Amino acid sequence: MYIGKVIGNVVATRKDEKLIGSKLLVIKLEEGMPRSARTIVAVDAVGAGKNDRVIICTGSSARYGLKDIESPVDSVVVGIIDDLNT
Amino acid sequence: MYIGKVIGNVVATRKDEKLIGSKLLVIKLEEGMPRSARTIVAVDAVGAGKNDRVIICTGSSARYGLKDIESPVDSVVVGIIDDLNT
Amino acid sequence: MYIGKVIGNVVATRKDEKLIGSKLLVIKLEEGMPRSARTIVAVDAVGAGKNDRVIICTGSSARYGLKDIESPVDSVVVGIIDDLNT
Amino acid sequence: MYIGKVIGNVVATRKDEKLIGSKLLVIKLEEGMPRSARTIVAVDAVGAGKNDRVIICTGSSARYGLKDIESPVDSVVVGIIDDLNT
Amino acid sequence: MYIGKVIGNVVATRKDEKLIGSKLLVIKLEEGMPRSARTIVAVDAVGAGKNDRVIICTGSSARYGLKDIESPVDSVVVGIIDDLNT
Repeated sequence: MYIGKVIGNVVATRKDEKLIGSKLLVIKLEEGMPRSARTIVAVDAVGAGKNDRVIICTGSSARYGLKDIESPVDSVVVGIIDDLNT
Repeated sequence: MYIGKVIGNVVATRKDEKLIGSKLLVIKLEEGMPRSARTIVAVDAVGAGKNDRVIICTGSSARYGLKDIESPVDSVVVGIIDDLNT
Repeated sequence: MYIGKVIGNVVATRKDEKLIGSKLLVIKLEEGMPRSARTIVAVDAVGAGKNDRVIICTGSSARYGLKDIESPVDSVVVGIIDDLNT
Repeated sequence: MYIGKVIGNVVATRKDEKLIGSKLLVIKLEEGMPRSARTIVAVDAVGAGKNDRVIICTGSSARYGLKDIESPVDSVVVGIIDDLNT
Repeated sequence: MYIGKVIGNVVATRKDEKLIGSKLLVIKLEEGMPRSARTIVAVDAVGAGKNDRVIICTGSSARYGLKDIESPVDSVVVGIIDDLNT
């Protein structure tokens, strides 16, 4: 999983029906991560909001964070980070 | 998911039979995305056309945006972007 | 999916039994694609030959272009390109 | 699979319920690996601790290292390295 | 699939039980491949040994090269290359 920061959201009226009702977050991946400083779009699964530092699950596994696991979604926010011990 | 812009389409007469009838879009990934400014080919699932700014689902999850989920497709356009709030 | 050009093939006598009878193509990914100018190995599913410009499906989805979808294959040629309208 | 070193862990109170009870390790990928020197977050499946040199399975396969294979997890520590013979 | 050379193996006593009995090879990806000159760890499925030039299947598809397809493995050696015709 990657660590990133929620920086906004996407508005899309025309979309796959399984995405209706989902919050599409824009996430900036953190420095030091693979693809650092790049932005991706992820579905929120934990009530994340702007400026939250979050854990993102990517790939086909991401679907298991959603109610409907047969959704065309490759990135899901699966946790909100309180602290990083390194 | 990534954000990109539809810049054209691919014509391919000889192809996997599950791709027959699908619109194969050429998408330029947006600056700031991973692989920014690169182009990929994605199947349209939402009626997207040239110059539309779209959301692309990649990987095995992408199949869930299609009618036949057992298609050999790794990238599907799953939404057309109205606005990006960042 | 990516676009590439068939530049050759791989000969491998000792291989997974599900690969027996498959044509293993060497593909050079096109400029402008992610990983452009790099080469990968893909199983042919559409009768592609040397110098053909092709569409390659990658990842777990690629298996759906094969007769046996439980094959250890992550890249399959799923179309031969006639034209690119951009 | 990749090789990396455990450098810490993530604390996240609000997370997908399937992640409750899992240890979320911060892993620094080793030099010479793809994405070397970058950090990722992986679920521990073998009792790994700080400074352990580990094998990480990524992608949808990673789920098979967990008790609940329907978890939204894309990276799992599946082995602790004793020695590398090269 | 990628092409690489077997340069060694990994010794790991503590590992996922589905990896017990598997040979964990260290593979250097060939120049010209994506991620060229980087090393990855892959499970041997065809009796490959040091210095063999091999085909590696990656991602979730790799599991289909193993006896137990529910293994946490993202890279498997699925062929030994005799010759490359390019």
